[in-house]
Amino acid sequence: MLNTGLQPSAPVLNFKDLTTANITPNVLAINSSCANPRTKFLIDRLVTHLHDYARETRLTQAEWATAIQFLVEAGQISNASRQELILLSDILGLSVLVDGIDHPTPKGATEGTVLGPFHVDNVASTGETELGGAISHDDEGEGLLVVGTVKDTQGNPISGVEIDVWETDSKGFYDVQYKDREPDKFDGRAVLKSDDQGRFWFRAIVPVPYPIPDDGPVGRLLKGTLKRHVWRPAHMHFLFKKEGWEPLITALYVRGSPYETTDAVFGVKESLIVDIGKVSDRQGFAEEYGASPDMKLLTYDFVLAGIQETADLRRTEAQKVADADPSLGVKVLDNGVLVRK
Amino acid sequence: MLNTGLQPSAPVLNFKDLTTANITPNVLAINSSCANPRTKFLIDRLVTHLHDYARETRLTQAEWATAIQFLVEAGQISNASRQELILLSDILGLSVLVDGIDHPTPKGATEGTVLGPFHVDNVASTGETELGGAISHDDEGEGLLVVGTVKDTQGNPISGVEIDVWETDSKGFYDVQYKDREPDKFDGRAVLKSDDQGRFWFRAIVPVPYPIPDDGPVGRLLKGTLKRHVWRPAHMHFLFKKEGWEPLITALYVRGSPYETTDAVFGVKESLIVDIGKVSDRQGFAEEYGASPDMKLLTYDFVLAGIQETADLRRTEAQKVADADPSLGVKVLDNGVLVRK
Repeated sequence: MLNTGLQPSAPVLNFKDLTTANITPNVLAINSSCANPRTKFLIDRLVTHLHDYARETRLTQAEWATAIQFLVEAGQISNASRQELILLSDILGLSVLVDGIDHPTPKGATEGTVLGPFHVDNVASTGETELGGAISHDDEGEGLLVVGTVKDTQGNPISGVEIDVWETDSKGFYDVQYKDREPDKFDGRAVLKSDDQGRFWFRAIVPVPYPIPDDGPVGRLLKGTLKRHVWRPAHMHFLFKKEGWEPLITALYVRGSPYETTDAVFGVKESLIVDIGKVSDRQGFAEEYGASPDMKLLTYDFVLAGIQETADLRRTEAQKVADADPSLGVKVLDNGVLVRK
Repeated sequence: MLNTGLQPSAPVLNFKDLTTANITPNVLAINSSCANPRTKFLIDRLVTHLHDYARETRLTQAEWATAIQFLVEAGQISNASRQELILLSDILGLSVLVDGIDHPTPKGATEGTVLGPFHVDNVASTGETELGGAISHDDEGEGLLVVGTVKDTQGNPISGVEIDVWETDSKGFYDVQYKDREPDKFDGRAVLKSDDQGRFWFRAIVPVPYPIPDDGPVGRLLKGTLKRHVWRPAHMHFLFKKEGWEPLITALYVRGSPYETTDAVFGVKESLIVDIGKVSDRQGFAEEYGASPDMKLLTYDFVLAGIQETADLRRTEAQKVADADPSLGVKVLDNGVLVRK
């Protein structure tokens, strides 16, 4: 706890006469009946940080009311295809941080990055796309052949991996952003499966940069208050899943795209930046994938981490936190989760 | 910053390859164009606390998603008469803390307490209630004569103070909680003005305990997760306003009411607990106020702080924060507001 000159006194336990100095231990005390030790730890630290924040900034009621109003608006503008609270988390760098915490990358595995607010869960329910199929039907987009492999950290191919892929259309909008869209009719997204050599390929369009939705409170915060832009560099999202493997949420970024070094949501990683080439760059690809030699080409070799090696890494990282600050009084459970001792 | 073994490295400034260790200084750096120094300080500390929270708890994506969903629901259940985010702030002790920070009480002045989510701004627009008038028309409530005075810390009466008062009906509901209510038709609330001797009086009903709205995410958190009850002890809200005086947001609590020592929103202060008596307890009151001797009686002498003495106290308290932790690097502006040096 930051020393704000208002060190908490002991809880009064009758919950009367709560002051700026004694409110925190009292709230922690009244919350102590929470039965789940992980939830209790999360709530305790949330209350402590919220209170420390208010004390150290000397938050005014007008500022507090502005924040409350912001959150109400963010909730109210949200719906199945508009996730303003995820956007808020994204532009504050919280999403990429939580991704880094929850999905540490073992040596040799592909790095993860932010999921973003436009992933759709139930695409697979409308049917899998066959290898070689088109995931985008936007005639104004520049055609792109995507050829990838999925391997383990030893270089062995992994077959039967579910590959969830999504990108915007040529105007920079995801299908779910169109209000007149038919439900369960998707475009610019698909679910495929890697073949017995760990390969997958499909037709898409060359990704374009796009602004995150900026007509809500998060857009006002970014542009009006923080004087930041609202753009993401051109990228295509990927989510890999197979039992026994750590799920990989990642994206590939187009080298040289505007905003490559100022992504509004902090998602870009050097190892995920790719050059867009042409099908003719790779011998035999035109014939093998039935594509025009002039078509744009994106290739990438993805490497999945084993579920056990990621769990081990997660536990090691958790132990570092427990060891670094004994005053936090936490221990690491077998599943790598931190709780109070 | 808590030492989580993940001390931030310097910003990379190209905003690529952001990790759990370097994300925070990078987000602060990209936010540094914010023109308002107070807003910049508030956002900086918000980002720092959010990130520290995630690092020290090793927040998982599933937990993060639960929190996002909670906030979306809280926003969506909110409307003009249902303020779920204020309730959340209340039950986490943040509201009473911010009240204590923003409205420090000079010696001799009446203590403030939480505003709560049921204050209505535009009651005065529907007309002032005359002194002696009834603010509640609930026949099932127990009639109560309220007689108060408003004075300064020297004991001088203050005339013409706007007194905003609100309470529930006998069932424990505020007027705005009834869905079939006509807009701008209020009951259980009124705005009065103190007379030239600083007095005010009106008819109300004896306050009853009531549960805060518990059919939303905050109710689930309180009852399901934290195993806390959702009740507030019996009380009546007051808000005093007059130019040149510090606004006083307070409430009077009925002594001996259930939940007096476990108020769900931490609002009770010993100095604000009152005995409910009878009109006949005070000589001459029955005649003076035209009330039955058997009617219940509540009296209280409110003391307003001058705007200058409160501002001085606010500045003193802010300076304590600035002095206590030089690592925060803040200074106090003339208006008592903390900003980065």
